[in-house]
Amino acid sequence: MSYSSGRQFVQIPGPTNVPERVLRAIARPTIDHRSPEFGRLGLEVLEGMKEVFQTSGRVVILPCSGSGAWESALTNTLSPGDKILMFDIGQFSALWIQVAVKLGLDVEVDAAQNDWRHGVDPQVVEARLRDDRGHKIKAVGVVHNETSSGVTSMVGAVREAMDRAQHPALLLVDTISSLASIDFRHDEWGVDVAIGGSQKGLMLPPGLGFNAISDKALVASKSARLPKSYWDWQPMLAQNATGFFPYTPATNLLYGLRESLQMLLREEGLQNVFARHRRHGEATRRAARAWGLENVALNPKEYSSSVTAIYTPAGHSADELRKVILERFNMPLGSGLGKFQNKVFRVGHLGDFNDLMLAGTLSGVEMGLEIAGVPHRKGGVAAALDYLTESLKEAASMART
Amino acid sequence: MSYSSGRQFVQIPGPTNVPERVLRAIARPTIDHRSPEFGRLGLEVLEGMKEVFQTSGRVVILPCSGSGAWESALTNTLSPGDKILMFDIGQFSALWIQVAVKLGLDVEVDAAQNDWRHGVDPQVVEARLRDDRGHKIKAVGVVHNETSSGVTSMVGAVREAMDRAQHPALLLVDTISSLASIDFRHDEWGVDVAIGGSQKGLMLPPGLGFNAISDKALVASKSARLPKSYWDWQPMLAQNATGFFPYTPATNLLYGLRESLQMLLREEGLQNVFARHRRHGEATRRAARAWGLENVALNPKEYSSSVTAIYTPAGHSADELRKVILERFNMPLGSGLGKFQNKVFRVGHLGDFNDLMLAGTLSGVEMGLEIAGVPHRKGGVAAALDYLTESLKEAASMART
Repeated sequence: MSYSSGRQFVQIPGPTNVPERVLRAIARPTIDHRSPEFGRLGLEVLEGMKEVFQTSGRVVILPCSGSGAWESALTNTLSPGDKILMFDIGQFSALWIQVAVKLGLDVEVDAAQNDWRHGVDPQVVEARLRDDRGHKIKAVGVVHNETSSGVTSMVGAVREAMDRAQHPALLLVDTISSLASIDFRHDEWGVDVAIGGSQKGLMLPPGLGFNAISDKALVASKSARLPKSYWDWQPMLAQNATGFFPYTPATNLLYGLRESLQMLLREEGLQNVFARHRRHGEATRRAARAWGLENVALNPKEYSSSVTAIYTPAGHSADELRKVILERFNMPLGSGLGKFQNKVFRVGHLGDFNDLMLAGTLSGVEMGLEIAGVPHRKGGVAAALDYLTESLKEAASMART
Repeated sequence: MSYSSGRQFVQIPGPTNVPERVLRAIARPTIDHRSPEFGRLGLEVLEGMKEVFQTSGRVVILPCSGSGAWESALTNTLSPGDKILMFDIGQFSALWIQVAVKLGLDVEVDAAQNDWRHGVDPQVVEARLRDDRGHKIKAVGVVHNETSSGVTSMVGAVREAMDRAQHPALLLVDTISSLASIDFRHDEWGVDVAIGGSQKGLMLPPGLGFNAISDKALVASKSARLPKSYWDWQPMLAQNATGFFPYTPATNLLYGLRESLQMLLREEGLQNVFARHRRHGEATRRAARAWGLENVALNPKEYSSSVTAIYTPAGHSADELRKVILERFNMPLGSGLGKFQNKVFRVGHLGDFNDLMLAGTLSGVEMGLEIAGVPHRKGGVAAALDYLTESLKEAASMART
């Protein structure tokens, strides 16, 4: 092993680059999780997370990965054999389906939508729910931002479709790679359970999962019969009322969360965070277009602003390209997952990220394409910089008027 | 809020004091959990944890609290309605019983043993298992070190009792507050699943749980039918073979674990760690005896070397004493849990701890007893220092001979 000079560009779509001040916060000595000081910390981060989810309801913070938060959403709201409508629109959607199957749920998957290049179709949701006259379907599960494909489903439109069908199913939404990166409105969109993780837009190391919980989901949880103990919301919410937890929480990650909430909510502001990510997504897609490479996402309304998935040309290995870029430039990129294996590479542009980091990232890709011998046109970096420059000029001119 | 000068003495029995170098390790930037560098980290900590559990089998590392590791041990080895023999010998034993009940197991609890001042009685285990001629009991669950009472159960003797009864039940052992503090021998004692957590003897912040798994437990896991996904050992072990994880692991805590394993295994040595804790346990009990206060644990063979639970005299509030000590000396102590509420305080002397920290800790208790008006004799600190000095002299004289 030899020393790699300079700071690593971690451009996988999570874990994301963790700000130095968050890392320093995490390195504070661990305190007593039953002390008054801890209670203040607990209340502060629980309150902050409600703002992040855009809910006036309640949020629970779990010591787990995003997969654990998936399981928590399902076990707290459903009973063995309950039917749930889910969509095979990407690797994480497929994994969440597997979790539901393993837990003993009856998963209905729409077989027509599985090219992994589109989000959940609200019209399909409406049709399926209209067909379900007996209300056998107890929940609809949607991944807001598919980390594997760079496709963002229109959750607000899904809610409208459910309302048109006048169906009482719960709406469960995975926001793991959208939370604090892409506008997610828990209350406005009538989401019942949202699932989040620490290692993406929240700019933290992995280790915390989240559920935001609507009143309707809370009512459902009182009669849900899937066995649960660790994930059980009831003792969690009871203790959370005073800032405490029913078991030892991941104290040091909560220090980090307090710091990242300060940055996201009080210093930059969530709307500015979303706009920053949108701009970096657009710049990345312009680079890909200039290179002559194909974006996985086909519908411009569903382009993700946290991650862009790009095909290498047929017959050219995406994994070899990523390997070259990692070895030469010390930059890990996201791999093609599932049916995209070796065909797609993914650029994460979420979390603690700025224009010059994006310039470095895209420069690494452009040089990597050349070194790996992947057919492309030059000019991707230039196209991205042109867009970044123009959008800054526009913003400056708008600020003047 | 005002500044409290000096470093806080965190003398709850976990989370324990985290060494500065572990905190610094945790503050390293998060890396790609699918990179070769991560694979090396994963293999190193998985291998190290086998040494800590004293097993040549396998260990899984879970992003969760100790409660999650309890659930993992149960869901991977048992099926709905399976009978498990457990013991109500302290608050954490009682909580683990609740977990088993919530998950749908048929828990058999020995009603005779519940004064919380004794460990699991191997003779009772033998008798119960002999009575179970049909082998309905699929597992025996034992808490090695009861954090609530400072009682260490004799796990080796429990195994011998099971062998004498020639009963095939699995032996599941909670080592949360014994692991890397008190000698625990997974293979030698024929333990099938051991449950651990990061925030005690491993000197880490909370957020990691562990299972050590015997061959027999692994076989049982192939047919166990309790629903599981997050806790499922099979995908975990498959990915662990190359140092990776089926979902995003808690990378930064694994950095800390690598550092603490280096300290425990390579620098101090596990046997020295156990001896250090034994010595501090003995010094603490001598202090309590000198104060005229009563130890919760009644059997000297079961005295814990990681935590000492001490009664305040009848009619004197243990919580008020703890409050005085926290406010005057910035030292949190463990509270009396469950039936010990307000009657007992607990001194944690595990993790990253030394003679002068113990001297400070006991000094805080002695001054606190005086200020809170709790009847006691002076001389506890002096008795502890006498013992520490004598034992050092003895060690020095033995080293010379």
